Amino acid sequence: MYTIEVSFSPVLYDYKLTRDNFITVIVDILRATTSVCAALEHGVSSVIPVAGVEIAKKYKKRGFLVACERDGKVPDFADMGNSPSDFLKEDYKGKEIVFSTTNGTQSVQKARDSDLIVLGSFVNLSSLSEWIISREKNVVIFCAAWKNLFNLEDSVFAGALTEKLLDSGKFVTQCDSARAAIDLWDHAKTDLFCYLSKSSHRNRLKHLVSDSDYQYTVTLDSTTVVPVLIEGHFENANH
Amino acid sequence: MYTIEVSFSPVLYDYKLTRDNFITVIVDILRATTSVCAALEHGVSSVIPVAGVEIAKKYKKRGFLVACERDGKVPDFADMGNSPSDFLKEDYKGKEIVFSTTNGTQSVQKARDSDLIVLGSFVNLSSLSEWIISREKNVVIFCAAWKNLFNLEDSVFAGALTEKLLDSGKFVTQCDSARAAIDLWDHAKTDLFCYLSKSSHRNRLKHLVSDSDYQYTVTLDSTTVVPVLIEGHFENANH
Repeated sequence: MYTIEVSFSPVLYDYKLTRDNFITVIVDILRATTSVCAALEHGVSSVIPVAGVEIAKKYKKRGFLVACERDGKVPDFADMGNSPSDFLKEDYKGKEIVFSTTNGTQSVQKARDSDLIVLGSFVNLSSLSEWIISREKNVVIFCAAWKNLFNLEDSVFAGALTEKLLDSGKFVTQCDSARAAIDLWDHAKTDLFCYLSKSSHRNRLKHLVSDSDYQYTVTLDSTTVVPVLIEGHFENANH
Repeated sequence: MYTIEVSFSPVLYDYKLTRDNFITVIVDILRATTSVCAALEHGVSSVIPVAGVEIAKKYKKRGFLVACERDGKVPDFADMGNSPSDFLKEDYKGKEIVFSTTNGTQSVQKARDSDLIVLGSFVNLSSLSEWIISREKNVVIFCAAWKNLFNLEDSVFAGALTEKLLDSGKFVTQCDSARAAIDLWDHAKTDLFCYLSKSSHRNRLKHLVSDSDYQYTVTLDSTTVVPVLIEGHFENANH
């Protein structure tokens, strides 16, 4: 049997009890991990996470496509913002895209103590869980949160994934965060759109994330992609 | 209107958004805050939180009664352990008791940025919420957790208290932790004994906390005491 642990915030990931033979699933529902799934589903060949705007600019100069948003605005040099629908242009197919996200890149840095790093979102929930089950490793679900504060959307997703993994019969959990996450998912799942509308981050981003992007974000299993980190690139493990 | 914010771990308290005019409610259901409520209910005049065993020994030499437990054992020099029932001897009435708890004392140190520090537990839920409502301040609920990891019992209590405060009509919350805590409380409240039996810390402490102490811990409103920190001592604000 393999174990499941949930960290509700990057700062809590430092205190996790899982140390060996584990996959870390990074979750940043609004919006990074949902957007990377959208990009790979659409045919983008890989997504390169970078932290600062300056690094993103350097990549741009070297000819890369760059997704970047700061304070809700797409800087002049960037090709697109951070929302799922920003990645759907026909001419992005087959290309690498550099994704500048401070929060996401810090999460990837922290998660380097794991054997594998994958990205989770509602849009790839079932494929992701099947892929994880076939790996035969322990799992840590790493909620990227917002400024280190617990958020509803990442935590509810952690519950959905935990439930799927437990249902396989190959996992157990002694983790209170995992148990709480399952109960939150239980509250949310009958109407995810409505439940997560009360999330503080959804309201914070209301002017940035269109209703159609939000609808896409809370729709289960629209894609089979599993973004896995390979030498600094997120690629589709199910390709 | 006043605000409510919930921190699920001491390490998350550092990132809280509430900065002004607030009460911090420290919650360590298993066992410190429940035990202090039991002590004050029983007639102990005040409880002095201290961190290390060495400090506790010094107090003992100066003639204080000392509650202390390390690795599940009461050291030879101490008068009692950390469970609620340890504080109920007849000759403790009217006395000060020094309570050695590393976790609890660190929480008190962190919470010194607030205007008032009070202790919350299921046994004083209603009295505590009435007392808070009459103060006209914002509230931060500080879950002491276990080794900084989220735990069910403190978080479910946070939900119970948040619900009471919101019901007064004098509070609002934009905090995702508070909303999640309410949903966990909603799951737990029909059978708190059973729900919290799955908590990892309850299982960790099973050999230390008797069934009767555990039953006491999950019973609502058995006391009207409100332990408030005054010059380093927890005293009953409702005295």
